[in-house]
Amino acid sequence: LSGEAEKYVREIGTVATYKKGTVLIREGRLAEKTFFVLNGCLRSYCKDKEGKEYTLQFAIRDWWISDFMSIYNNQKASLAVECVIDSTVVEFNAKTLSNIFTLFPEFEAFQRRNLERHVVSLHRRILNQLQLPAAERYDLFTKQYPDVDQFVPNYHIASFLGITQQSLSRIRSERIKK
Amino acid sequence: LSGEAEKYVREIGTVATYKKGTVLIREGRLAEKTFFVLNGCLRSYCKDKEGKEYTLQFAIRDWWISDFMSIYNNQKASLAVECVIDSTVVEFNAKTLSNIFTLFPEFEAFQRRNLERHVVSLHRRILNQLQLPAAERYDLFTKQYPDVDQFVPNYHIASFLGITQQSLSRIRSERIKK
Repeated sequence: LSGEAEKYVREIGTVATYKKGTVLIREGRLAEKTFFVLNGCLRSYCKDKEGKEYTLQFAIRDWWISDFMSIYNNQKASLAVECVIDSTVVEFNAKTLSNIFTLFPEFEAFQRRNLERHVVSLHRRILNQLQLPAAERYDLFTKQYPDVDQFVPNYHIASFLGITQQSLSRIRSERIKK
Repeated sequence: LSGEAEKYVREIGTVATYKKGTVLIREGRLAEKTFFVLNGCLRSYCKDKEGKEYTLQFAIRDWWISDFMSIYNNQKASLAVECVIDSTVVEFNAKTLSNIFTLFPEFEAFQRRNLERHVVSLHRRILNQLQLPAAERYDLFTKQYPDVDQFVPNYHIASFLGITQQSLSRIRSERIKK
């Protein structure tokens, strides 16, 4: 990025620190913000009618998180985003951030690379979900999110992997024995 | 798109018709081509060690398909792409196609919109996979891919939904009764 583009990004972003449990995006409202994580851990998730939660994403240092379905399609959020632990983020208004493409067209190629990488990781996740046994999906999770295991409650990880907490506990105790 | 950009896309694309069962991308080789479907239906899938297949994507009219993990990351294909029925596509060499961003920077914003839409559909699919019972996932599938049901073998659809053929048959016969 050019110095000017970087300066713009710094100007429009606000650094903020939030306590564990703070909800930054709520289901049913328009998601106006997107978050870049400096430290801590955020999580995006949806709930079914019974209130059961399903985790789409964890975001640790240097990751972006929001309800991109809401932002890209300009519709109400179907996800919530919350802080799993105390976290420091750079907050952006999504519309202001998207002005960057008009102001600094060089940003397009950079963002294309980001989106391509994101598509690749989503393709991998779908294939892993279809193909791999839960224990192998857990191993990939611990590689992709090192340490997240330490501070994220069991039921969030289970809700990311699409397994029950009981299955997750069984896998973990097998891993410890090894 | 400007007339010039459109002209370029037409020049670098080759229209081709393939018989049902033709394999256009093979696992283990570099995926060099990307396909835009004019009519018919293509499918991308991977196999596990036992040869069981898992379908990542079906592509019908106006959809793009390839092994984007291979193309974006410049690594050997982990997917195969084949024609589910006789199909007509526009084939592009992926590298030649990517030159379009240098030649016609206006293409960047267009591709960003495409990638954003793709990300949204992948987020939805992951959440649906985590959250919805198989019968509801089947209903969404028939909405998203109208008619595909008619010509795609049961086991491909089951391998897309992540369920057994037996479950799929049960869901279908329940739907017919309704």
